[in-house]
Amino acid sequence: MSERPSGRTDNALRPVTIETGFSTHAEGSALIRVGGTEVLCTASVETRVPPFLRGQGQGWVTAEYGMLPRATHTRGSREAARGKQSGRTQEIQRLIGRSLRACVDLKALGECMITLDCDVLNADGGTRCASITGAWVALAIALEGMGKSKALTGQVAAVSCGLTAAGPVLDLDYAEDSSAQADTNFVLTADGGIVEIQGTAEDRPFRPEEFQILFDLAQKGTKELFAVQKEALARKKG
Amino acid sequence: MSERPSGRTDNALRPVTIETGFSTHAEGSALIRVGGTEVLCTASVETRVPPFLRGQGQGWVTAEYGMLPRATHTRGSREAARGKQSGRTQEIQRLIGRSLRACVDLKALGECMITLDCDVLNADGGTRCASITGAWVALAIALEGMGKSKALTGQVAAVSCGLTAAGPVLDLDYAEDSSAQADTNFVLTADGGIVEIQGTAEDRPFRPEEFQILFDLAQKGTKELFAVQKEALARKKG
Amino acid sequence: MSERPSGRTDNALRPVTIETGFSTHAEGSALIRVGGTEVLCTASVETRVPPFLRGQGQGWVTAEYGMLPRATHTRGSREAARGKQSGRTQEIQRLIGRSLRACVDLKALGECMITLDCDVLNADGGTRCASITGAWVALAIALEGMGKSKALTGQVAAVSCGLTAAGPVLDLDYAEDSSAQADTNFVLTADGGIVEIQGTAEDRPFRPEEFQILFDLAQKGTKELFAVQKEALARKKG
Amino acid sequence: MSERPSGRTDNALRPVTIETGFSTHAEGSALIRVGGTEVLCTASVETRVPPFLRGQGQGWVTAEYGMLPRATHTRGSREAARGKQSGRTQEIQRLIGRSLRACVDLKALGECMITLDCDVLNADGGTRCASITGAWVALAIALEGMGKSKALTGQVAAVSCGLTAAGPVLDLDYAEDSSAQADTNFVLTADGGIVEIQGTAEDRPFRPEEFQILFDLAQKGTKELFAVQKEALARKKG
Amino acid sequence: MSERPSGRTDNALRPVTIETGFSTHAEGSALIRVGGTEVLCTASVETRVPPFLRGQGQGWVTAEYGMLPRATHTRGSREAARGKQSGRTQEIQRLIGRSLRACVDLKALGECMITLDCDVLNADGGTRCASITGAWVALAIALEGMGKSKALTGQVAAVSCGLTAAGPVLDLDYAEDSSAQADTNFVLTADGGIVEIQGTAEDRPFRPEEFQILFDLAQKGTKELFAVQKEALARKKG
Amino acid sequence: MSERPSGRTDNALRPVTIETGFSTHAEGSALIRVGGTEVLCTASVETRVPPFLRGQGQGWVTAEYGMLPRATHTRGSREAARGKQSGRTQEIQRLIGRSLRACVDLKALGECMITLDCDVLNADGGTRCASITGAWVALAIALEGMGKSKALTGQVAAVSCGLTAAGPVLDLDYAEDSSAQADTNFVLTADGGIVEIQGTAEDRPFRPEEFQILFDLAQKGTKELFAVQKEALARKKG
Repeated sequence: MSERPSGRTDNALRPVTIETGFSTHAEGSALIRVGGTEVLCTASVETRVPPFLRGQGQGWVTAEYGMLPRATHTRGSREAARGKQSGRTQEIQRLIGRSLRACVDLKALGECMITLDCDVLNADGGTRCASITGAWVALAIALEGMGKSKALTGQVAAVSCGLTAAGPVLDLDYAEDSSAQADTNFVLTADGGIVEIQGTAEDRPFRPEEFQILFDLAQKGTKELFAVQKEALARKKG
Repeated sequence: MSERPSGRTDNALRPVTIETGFSTHAEGSALIRVGGTEVLCTASVETRVPPFLRGQGQGWVTAEYGMLPRATHTRGSREAARGKQSGRTQEIQRLIGRSLRACVDLKALGECMITLDCDVLNADGGTRCASITGAWVALAIALEGMGKSKALTGQVAAVSCGLTAAGPVLDLDYAEDSSAQADTNFVLTADGGIVEIQGTAEDRPFRPEEFQILFDLAQKGTKELFAVQKEALARKKG
Repeated sequence: MSERPSGRTDNALRPVTIETGFSTHAEGSALIRVGGTEVLCTASVETRVPPFLRGQGQGWVTAEYGMLPRATHTRGSREAARGKQSGRTQEIQRLIGRSLRACVDLKALGECMITLDCDVLNADGGTRCASITGAWVALAIALEGMGKSKALTGQVAAVSCGLTAAGPVLDLDYAEDSSAQADTNFVLTADGGIVEIQGTAEDRPFRPEEFQILFDLAQKGTKELFAVQKEALARKKG
Repeated sequence: MSERPSGRTDNALRPVTIETGFSTHAEGSALIRVGGTEVLCTASVETRVPPFLRGQGQGWVTAEYGMLPRATHTRGSREAARGKQSGRTQEIQRLIGRSLRACVDLKALGECMITLDCDVLNADGGTRCASITGAWVALAIALEGMGKSKALTGQVAAVSCGLTAAGPVLDLDYAEDSSAQADTNFVLTADGGIVEIQGTAEDRPFRPEEFQILFDLAQKGTKELFAVQKEALARKKG
Repeated sequence: MSERPSGRTDNALRPVTIETGFSTHAEGSALIRVGGTEVLCTASVETRVPPFLRGQGQGWVTAEYGMLPRATHTRGSREAARGKQSGRTQEIQRLIGRSLRACVDLKALGECMITLDCDVLNADGGTRCASITGAWVALAIALEGMGKSKALTGQVAAVSCGLTAAGPVLDLDYAEDSSAQADTNFVLTADGGIVEIQGTAEDRPFRPEEFQILFDLAQKGTKELFAVQKEALARKKG
Repeated sequence: MSERPSGRTDNALRPVTIETGFSTHAEGSALIRVGGTEVLCTASVETRVPPFLRGQGQGWVTAEYGMLPRATHTRGSREAARGKQSGRTQEIQRLIGRSLRACVDLKALGECMITLDCDVLNADGGTRCASITGAWVALAIALEGMGKSKALTGQVAAVSCGLTAAGPVLDLDYAEDSSAQADTNFVLTADGGIVEIQGTAEDRPFRPEEFQILFDLAQKGTKELFAVQKEALARKKG
């Protein structure tokens, strides 16, 4: 079995940092860097809810995802110019929204809406997982600012694991992601719960035993991410 | 724990039938009924490939998904009239395409494209899983007609399992799906491989042990679906 | 003069059947088969009216038309994926809507809206006429279910006639339609009234005398369609 | 029976004038006025054909229709700003295109495309018929300029007739059109042929005898329009 | 230095005429001809304001711009058919709107909206300037008809100047515009104020002294345009 | 006359910094901060030209502009989600493109295309001017990397000036911009040339003398911006 392109061990995350307050206007913001991947996550609070929730005394959390045209190796076309969001973009932003709603008590939130915008400034694999991990921090800051920290019912982070030429590994970078035989994203909570699992065979179907190894790696990886999230929040409060 | 709305036991599929040849013109077609869910799956063969594959001596398999406006309890707006496919539609058709590509040797297929159209005529939960299970039959028929049965490298079927008021159950119907605490779709192969796993916590994060039970139910359920698929193909040749 | 491709006599309809209740959820539904053409017609009742009719104490009847991508010999692109309905689709659904409104007393209907969805599952010519003939049955069932059968002021059916290599003939199939010199759709009422006439010279202008022969054929053909519609309704009550 | 709003007799056209050369750049142009309706028709010649005709040694004639936002009593929204053409617009431009193709020998035209743009500057009913009548003049001028007058195989004009409170009448203006019980557009050739008939019951189905009266009125009316078209062409040659 | 293509002196406008009342239905209209450029400007009054102004006791003035497909040397595609307005169109209509709002007291106007539609029938350069100059006349007529002439606080006209092979010149026609080194549009008021200046280097940056010469030419040119506007209004009152 | 909201003197720029290399993948990048406004500018090089330039032996420079949804005080809707770019966005990106083309010798560039993406991360007024100033740095870096620095024929920067409650001032921030009587953007070259001038009266037409003062301020301000640009490039070469 070959080495990982980055030289990392199989269960090593890339260096992760989360910087809060990058956005001047947002009620909460977090600029997360996972290796060469960099995502700006902002939480915007509005005193309205979507039509389907009006008058029900509960709030809503939703997400939008975007990638700057030159976040990638070759320039991609701008979705605003093309006139529509790709299926991939919509799939990702639906995932982010579901993942964050899973850790919010919408009744306790009250009639307001929080939109999490995750915009990729630089991409090197794992942008959807970085978005979820960063968005949780932006959300926590926004809720604190609203005096509604109690509506936050859990801590959520995400990481991808995959079967590569170097075997099952944690936290795929772009080089690994584009050649993996299988790629699985795990969105987990700090108390060991599952929020989302998305596993995909790219090249060949994979075995239940292989899945279990990937799951174990993800649990190890998210444990480290939870610590980074907490430090970022602690630094902010100073 | 309460009973299932349909009175089924926890590990019981709804009645499943697959009727081939419903479509007059398609190279392969299967009308699949899973309880009250009914999906028309057609396989269309074209002697061209998408631009990104031109001249590479391999083929492509893709899928499109749609729902008739009144397949559901209340009429939904027609996506063609609204001018775009919803994020949900795009997510589903990307899933169907990936799932079927996982059981085709694209090199052996040669330079042609097979489009699997899955159109829901009546919906009662589980339409994406029924689409995958039916599309595999339509695909198998089309490949046989092309004299390329060898390009079909596996048998694929899909089923949803979830955590409901009746506990962990197999094959959610609409009543169960709309109130489940967690919903997981499994796309598996007849030889025990995993093609796709999509697990989502709807109400609260769920436990790894619960996930394992759902996985076991799915393996039991797909075993039965594989038999129905084979019978449908056998009847056709009959 | 040559024979018709199907061997039919000049004034013979193709076999016509109408099956009610195919749709599980719709307030009325009819699956009409005219030879190889098969259209699923559903009537959906909503307790709202379009903005331009609000507060006027009357209802509305409208229609939408679609064709499954592989209803035709070669796969057509999905209108939802392309992002717009073709001019042909819009023209047809406007025709269906006008035709059905012509047999409904909108005041007697009261403030509600009935949408007739006509989706072509298999196409072999004459889809717009089959849609109108089937939609009338779906509409009648829906109105009966609402206890508003009195709002139905007439019986409407449609058939196409054309000038072909076999002379003027009734009920063109695809082979005839694509090579006809003239093609005329007649939407008529059971008491001999004209709801719509759409005549088009495809190859050369045609003569008033020829038009009269086509009109006579249409009157003969719709008489038979009216009987099939009535039988379908009677069987349902049966 | 009441009088017509305009005081015209039942078989009287509104005053019709056709002015050629209004457009500076077009290969042919005609500004047609039918009472208060005013349409600018231009014929543009391009040395290309649509993809489906490439390399077949024949040409194509097509049409586009538009209405200035304030051509009507109350301002309509601009279709370019709304981002799509209405069903009505598409239906009309398809009708204009078919009508003009019916009087052109596409083989004799050779591999080129003529686009007829019909833009309504002021609207007072009958805009589609005025468009067809004017477009024929623009087309004839363009063909003459190309030295291909022989490709013009007939003379086409259009008029609407309807059943109004004043009985069956020729050439409906807006006041009549918006309250007619039935409205029928006839596109006829100078030698008595039928190119298109579009009859629509607005209020109640109408009788075959009534249709015949409308047809007779249309034949009388188009006879006068053919004369106006010829005079316009003759004046141009001077 | 060479002569201007039209033979005009450097500070000569093309012949300018403004005809009022061309539009039958609009509350104000002006057909302006500047040489070969011809624009129909209509002012439509509606008793509503855009959402962002509701309940604020003031009105709004906005503009839309369009070009008939064959207003130009070669046919351009119809924006309604393409499904969106080009960046150029949007830029121009925003300019027209701002320019006209600059001469209206929106408080004095009261809660209503005036839309200025500027549609180019024939184009030979300078269409945005002709639109502004014509739209002012249409607006003045509409305001007078509403009894709100006092809301009109100034007189506005526009002209383009540029650096060409013939040196700095007034009122570029198409031949000059398409080869100018710099092109500057001036929207000025009759009392010497600046409403808009848009100067663009096409080929090379230009010097402040050159800009000053263009500005002087524009002041001379708009003085003549103000006179033509006044005459048009005076003729109308007769 | 009142003081400026920021306390700056009338001819003082906000603090300006330009950081190169922020983007991992782009051939050139500059993150420009002008007070609270922050724009990421990237230059992407592709070996193709737009269709209208093919085979002409010259290159092209174009620009796209975007704003993150929460770059502003209140969250704006995402243009990709709305499905189109606003008129404002298109106007700005056309301006950026023209401004940068004015300092490139497209023949010397050869057959390739450089796209300048300017994405606003935080907005506090003057985003279009900051985009131009930053994009010039990204462009210079990309050209140097291509070995084509000679194709860069000039140095371009932009600044806005306006008439505010504090009189004519340099470099408007958001508070000033949203209440200015007039707002003028100047795109100038280091050798004193004019690339673009866009002056707009917001509240009342302004006088030529006022315009001259704004022009003088802009020349002072851009002189300082040219120095910042040069320092950023020098630091990069280190």
